Amino acid sequence: MKAAILTIGTELLMGMTLNTNSEYLSRKLNELGISVMYHSTVGDNEDRIIEDINRLYEKVDLIVTSGGLGPTKDDITKEVIANALGLDLVLNEEVKLGLIERFKKYGRNITENNFRQAYFPKDSIILDNDFGTAPGCIVKKGKKMALLLPGPPREVNPMFENYASKELQKMNKNIITSKFIKVFGMGESKVEDKIMDIVENQSNPTIATYVKSGEVLIRVTSSSENEEENYKLINPIVDEITSRIGEYIFNYEDMSLPETTINLLLEKKFTISTAESCTGGLIAKLITDFSGVSDIYKCSLITYANEAKVKELNVSEQSLDEFGAVSEEVCLEMLDGLYEKTKSDICITVTGIAGPNGGSEEKPVGLVYIGIKYFDNTFIFKKNFRGGRERIRMNTALFAFNEIRKIVTT
Amino acid sequence: MKAAILTIGTELLMGMTLNTNSEYLSRKLNELGISVMYHSTVGDNEDRIIEDINRLYEKVDLIVTSGGLGPTKDDITKEVIANALGLDLVLNEEVKLGLIERFKKYGRNITENNFRQAYFPKDSIILDNDFGTAPGCIVKKGKKMALLLPGPPREVNPMFENYASKELQKMNKNIITSKFIKVFGMGESKVEDKIMDIVENQSNPTIATYVKSGEVLIRVTSSSENEEENYKLINPIVDEITSRIGEYIFNYEDMSLPETTINLLLEKKFTISTAESCTGGLIAKLITDFSGVSDIYKCSLITYANEAKVKELNVSEQSLDEFGAVSEEVCLEMLDGLYEKTKSDICITVTGIAGPNGGSEEKPVGLVYIGIKYFDNTFIFKKNFRGGRERIRMNTALFAFNEIRKIVTT
Repeated sequence: MKAAILTIGTELLMGMTLNTNSEYLSRKLNELGISVMYHSTVGDNEDRIIEDINRLYEKVDLIVTSGGLGPTKDDITKEVIANALGLDLVLNEEVKLGLIERFKKYGRNITENNFRQAYFPKDSIILDNDFGTAPGCIVKKGKKMALLLPGPPREVNPMFENYASKELQKMNKNIITSKFIKVFGMGESKVEDKIMDIVENQSNPTIATYVKSGEVLIRVTSSSENEEENYKLINPIVDEITSRIGEYIFNYEDMSLPETTINLLLEKKFTISTAESCTGGLIAKLITDFSGVSDIYKCSLITYANEAKVKELNVSEQSLDEFGAVSEEVCLEMLDGLYEKTKSDICITVTGIAGPNGGSEEKPVGLVYIGIKYFDNTFIFKKNFRGGRERIRMNTALFAFNEIRKIVTT
Repeated sequence: MKAAILTIGTELLMGMTLNTNSEYLSRKLNELGISVMYHSTVGDNEDRIIEDINRLYEKVDLIVTSGGLGPTKDDITKEVIANALGLDLVLNEEVKLGLIERFKKYGRNITENNFRQAYFPKDSIILDNDFGTAPGCIVKKGKKMALLLPGPPREVNPMFENYASKELQKMNKNIITSKFIKVFGMGESKVEDKIMDIVENQSNPTIATYVKSGEVLIRVTSSSENEEENYKLINPIVDEITSRIGEYIFNYEDMSLPETTINLLLEKKFTISTAESCTGGLIAKLITDFSGVSDIYKCSLITYANEAKVKELNVSEQSLDEFGAVSEEVCLEMLDGLYEKTKSDICITVTGIAGPNGGSEEKPVGLVYIGIKYFDNTFIFKKNFRGGRERIRMNTALFAFNEIRKIVTT
């Protein structure tokens, strides 16, 4: 099936809002085996919405809209879609009662306008909105189909995940199954080079690569009449990819590297402490992004200034003078100091130059020392990261998470 | 002038890449007084690109494209635009020589394909690419215009900012001037309510509101024959908005709240230390996002576990038992301990429940205590933030930055 995504809202055309819905929906539709051919965005203007819907229906079977389901006069997506498919708008009593209840619960007065949200193109499948008042719907007429979703991502994502995707799956004779491979330490284009021949020789399963904050995601998706058959098609591909780049693979689920590592530590009940200089709290922030780490996360220091390195970690003034704050020696002394202080199973220390200032010929921006102490084993890594301040800091943090993951699992 | 933004790339339709170019370019074009009417995305497919360009030229004068300027056969944007405008593609010798030099410098072999990047529609204005090999261009034929930009945002943004915007300004008889108002602590819809009448009664200057991670940006933009005239139009509007919501305004530049506060502290040379529990390093991370803070940022602790609160900050076990870690008492003891340890001009402590676990009826998820010591003055704030873990943590951090800003400036 071919699809187009039509996002509606003047705020998108003004650049006031980043259009994350088109990305999210494209990814999800592709996972269901639906090819997205067009993205289009128009303002809250009836003529332009109508024109665009008619144009897109000449090219695709499914139009997925986002926005324009609210109670105001501007919200005309349902009218326009009903019109384009030659269907009437019909009141859904159940949705109307739900709205009345919802308003009563929050002590707000319901106005006639609000009931616009209870009208849908005839024979629509209603999609509940668990995070807002405007339900979505799926409607079909002949070969043409529309999936109407609200605008805010916090409403769109759960509505698609929990309701819309199941309805779309039902309409598909085939079952879609995906496996994920998460890669760190190898760039996307290198990954593509390594598996290009597999990608090009495959139509089922299909293989796609995505990149997000330093991690590469490979998705292997198969479509057939049953799940077992899908896995028969997917597994050899996943095995082949693993045999080629296995050492860079950190997970076979769509889970981030920090979460993968933290889960591992939680599972093994290893206590952890960190002392960061150039990353300035980023590693701590990434660790505490996950609820429930307080049992293992014993201590975190950000020893940004030299004074703090001396006072908190017992780094010697002499080493700071002789080797500089960004040096193997200081990184090691930080590590010893952190261990003495916390006696954690795993200690991590970072010192480096994130830039844009502070670099020299001998110690350029991007030079980072990462120290890891794992029980009796001590590791010091010297890295030269490239890019701007943010990228250097993020790469340092991810490198640390990956090394810990490797150390703990081997 | 009316414009459309056409982003080209199959990776966008697969949901592999978030389309930040459309947002960025829309904002920038609007700042120049150019109305963006359509966003459209198509894959790297010649027929569909041609069809879309022809469609859009029936509706707008300016098409801004992103992507398809590279050296491969898929990169056909220039050919297609030249065709649509009835122009030939012409070799630009200067660009060709630049490419040869660039390849020599990096020790790479140049192939015939690479010279595709030196061809442009006749009479194009070439736009240098300081961060990649593919230059952009602006081309005009009669009333129709095209601005061709590369795909990667790190190339698009500086090319637009440094070159394209100046060329577009030149073509505009009027000068465009913008002033910014940054607001924290009042939601976007509340801000809109407060200034709705001004927005609706104005066509020059225009007023637009944008929201990004808890901060609201109001942009007031005027267009006239000279800058002085613009300020005459803008200033009374800015004054009127200030008189209505002045207490929520933290800057009249497009600068984030953390940066505003940090700049203030750097300027006043106030030293600062932080001890975070629930924000787990987020405040430290936001402080160290800016290079050059190591002179004032004395010490940062992340006392996530109770043990660390006792050991690092001298919080009494008794208070932890009696009042719990998330309490005014413990927040205050953390503040005292941090001050004793660091003697910083400003100390900040945070303890709270970021969720999703750990809440109770008495102490729900979102309950946060924020302590600030500013020389001899001590402040403890009790807040109940709403939303998920990430939002609670970010709102806590921003609240702290805003309070410090207010304390330091009053």
